[in-house]
Order: sequence, then C-alpha cells, then structure tokens
Amino acid sequence: MGVLRDEERNRVCVVLVRARNPNNIGAVARAMYDFGFADLRLVTDFDRPFEGARSAVDASEVLASARMFASMAEAVADCTLVMGTTAVGQRMLEQPLEVLHEAGRRVAGALDTDAGRVALVFGSEKTGLSREELSHCHALVTIPMRTYAGVRHPSMNLGQAAAVCLYELVRGMEPARSGGTALRAMTAGENERLAGLLREVLEEAGYMRHHPANSEAEHVRRLVLRMANEATDGPVWMGMLRQVLWGLRRGGE
Amino acid sequence: MGVLRDEERNRVCVVLVRARNPNNIGAVARAMYDFGFADLRLVTDFDRPFEGARSAVDASEVLASARMFASMAEAVADCTLVMGTTAVGQRMLEQPLEVLHEAGRRVAGALDTDAGRVALVFGSEKTGLSREELSHCHALVTIPMRTYAGVRHPSMNLGQAAAVCLYELVRGMEPARSGGTALRAMTAGENERLAGLLREVLEEAGYMRHHPANSEAEHVRRLVLRMANEATDGPVWMGMLRQVLWGLRRGGE
Repeated sequence: MGVLRDEERNRVCVVLVRARNPNNIGAVARAMYDFGFADLRLVTDFDRPFEGARSAVDASEVLASARMFASMAEAVADCTLVMGTTAVGQRMLEQPLEVLHEAGRRVAGALDTDAGRVALVFGSEKTGLSREELSHCHALVTIPMRTYAGVRHPSMNLGQAAAVCLYELVRGMEPARSGGTALRAMTAGENERLAGLLREVLEEAGYMRHHPANSEAEHVRRLVLRMANEATDGPVWMGMLRQVLWGLRRGGE
Repeated sequence: MGVLRDEERNRVCVVLVRARNPNNIGAVARAMYDFGFADLRLVTDFDRPFEGARSAVDASEVLASARMFASMAEAVADCTLVMGTTAVGQRMLEQPLEVLHEAGRRVAGALDTDAGRVALVFGSEKTGLSREELSHCHALVTIPMRTYAGVRHPSMNLGQAAAVCLYELVRGMEPARSGGTALRAMTAGENERLAGLLREVLEEAGYMRHHPANSEAEHVRRLVLRMANEATDGPVWMGMLRQVLWGLRRGGE
C-alpha cells in the first residue's frame, strides 16, 4: 500500500474499547508515537486504566492528548471509516472481513479520496469487540496468524496487535538514515582490478600452477563478483593482496 | 513479499542478544507463536531472564524449546543469512541498511533459493546490538519510524519490534476464516428490485411529486448502488419497504 503522509496520519485515530491493562494502553501509545500517530481514544466507564497508563511509558504526548468516551458510538462519531479488529474464529462475522494488508489499502484509499477520519478499533484484551461494538464498523480487519491443529486460535497481545496494524499503515515509509554511511557496491572496474591482483597473487604463490582451471581469469572474476563487496571494501582487499604479493615475492628471492 | 511456507518458517530463527526483561522475552515468544515461528535463541551469560520468561506467558512451546548460547557467533553459526535489527541514528552503520519490507524480500528470497537458515537478531532493550555483534550480520534491518524534530529517535519495545518484523515475513498469509459467513454483495438484479420498490414507496408517500428529479429511476438506482449492501441485507430492506408501502396505502384509504 502507499505510505500515509503526515496529514493523513493525523486523520487516523486508534480507539481502545474497554482495555483493562494500563501496560497495554501504554504499549499502544508507544507504538502510535513510534509510527507517528497521535489521536488515541479510550472507551471506558472508569478512569483507572488510563491513569495507570499515564505513568507507564514515555509516549507521554500521545497519552496526554488521549480522550475518553463513554461509548463506542461517541468515540467514532466523527469518523467516515471505522475498522474493527478481530481475531477470527470466535464468532459469526456479519461484516466483510479483510486481512490486514487489504485493510491497509482500504484505509489509505479512504484517507486519499476523502477528507474524513479513519478509526482503527481494538476491543478488550479478554473478549475483543462485542457484537454491538462490531456493528459500528464498516469492515473488520484481522492480522493473519498461524493456526495450530487442536489448539485454541492464537490471539495477539494488544500492544503488539496495535504495533503490527500501525506498521502496515506506514509500511514503505523511509527510515531516518542519519549517521549511516552511504554504501555502494564495487564497480565492475574495481572488481576487475581486484580479480587481476588476486590472479597475480595466485601465480606468485604457485596456486595457479597446481590449479590452472580455478585460476582462469573468468573463474576468478566470477569468484570476485560473488564476494558482493561494498565499495569501501575494495581498497582494503587490494591492500591486503598487495601485501601478500609483496611477502610472496620477498620470500621467493 | 511472498508468504513463507511452513517449511520456510521453520528455517527462520529469532536471536535475542542480552535481552534483560523476561516480559519482553515472553512477548517475543508469543509473537513467534502467533505467526508460526518456533526457533528462539537467547544469547546471555546468565539464566535469569530466560527463567523468568518461562513463567511469563503461555507461548510455552516456543519457550520450552528455546536454546541458550554464550555468544552471538555460536547462536548464528548454522545460519546462511544473518539480519541484525537496528534503530538507525545511534551509530555509524558499516553494513547495508534495509527498511523492513526490503529486508523481508531478502529473507524470503534466501529461504526460497537456499536450504539454509535465516537469523533475525535483536539486541538488548537498552543498547541494541553492539558494533561487534553487528559485524556478524550480512545486512541490517530497520523498522521505519517517524522522527520528531529535536527529540531523540523513537525506539520500539522489543516485543512490538519482533511482532512487526515477523508480521512482515507472513504478510499476505491467509487468515483462518472459520466461523465467518460467506458474504457477497447484492447482485444488480437484487438492487434493481430494491430500487423499484423504493420508487413505489416514494410515489405513494408523495415524495415523487415534490422532488421529481430525486425520484428519477436513474437517480434512485445510483442511490441504491451506493448503499453497497450485502446480499443478506436485500430481503431485509425489501421487507421494510413493503411494510412502509402497505402502511402508506392503508393510511391513504
């Protein structure tokens, strides 16, 4: 899918319905912060989990601006697309079910063609979204998971599920490459010089005489190309081989 | 990227180097279980974190078969591709850096063309992988994250980072759709009957007389098509409209 622009990310909200564990709320806020989302909404009838989460992590901006709602209807009232997350297999589904990367395309499409807001809704850790809560959703989204014969369906940790869903929305975003050296592969010419020097070494060391087939130019060239060196490795290899060559020649005197 | 087959997933190992928090090790094991990976390796010089993790979660199969190693070299000795995860910006990088979805393609390609094993390596929560540890890696992978002006680079929670990386490897995997009703959109014929009945209602209610343009067949058809109903909604709408029509006609008598 396409990468969301900043302005589009600002129109995505994450709605946690009846989340009970403050650590999970904190983990969701942290994933939102990591991926550049800011609008967190909590549907809860008591203050406790949210208050616990405030002190749980340092994604404090997201938590500080989080809003609380008494019902799912109020939490998503300003959204034009409401996507409910579900672990399949636990109930009859009455809405279209999309696997996460399909849902990501739908979200990106909605944000691109419509100035409205998109809600990504997660249910409680224990029961997920209720049938009533699901009825507010335009579509359901599920994270693809492995099934194990004879074992209950795996269900994801809330913080991990949110991280995975938000990742899908920013997938393809360029990472900040600060501090990284600009790497490039060795050019054909650099490889050719390296192959030539290697053959000199092989000749001088007597290897070429004993293994002529392995020492043919074509063979050595392929060997060098398979090394797939970075450009900065070239001078290092060249220096090593020159030193070896010098040592061989000196020894041979 | 392509979806990994079971046999390919079995050749992926997750290596945690100096992970300190048992909850994080447990979270990584749970994500592995959820996505169908089994080979967990811990590089640690003491038993504590692993023992804590054993009791921390119910991804017990993964934890029970996890192996401990004294060094990173030993942990990845049987792997033909070693991918180290890194939060960029913290050091000079001396290996090629790939953003996660590119790295996913490399992993899938390696598993497809080579019978070898692939290691996905995560460093400690606090410091990430050291320069020495990174030197064991063929390439580095980074999860794309948003940067904030003037603020330290975000770094992901270990459990969430592992979940996101493993998700990338199974992305596109079909979810188990057990219990789901097979949904289909309404056919053109069903929509046409619904539109026809709606116009009868509009006529009977007097709406058509007051708003002739809105009541034209073409307009009503487009209105009905935009409803994008599921097939099972058709009879429900038809029943509602018939009842309304009956009520209108009875009132007009």
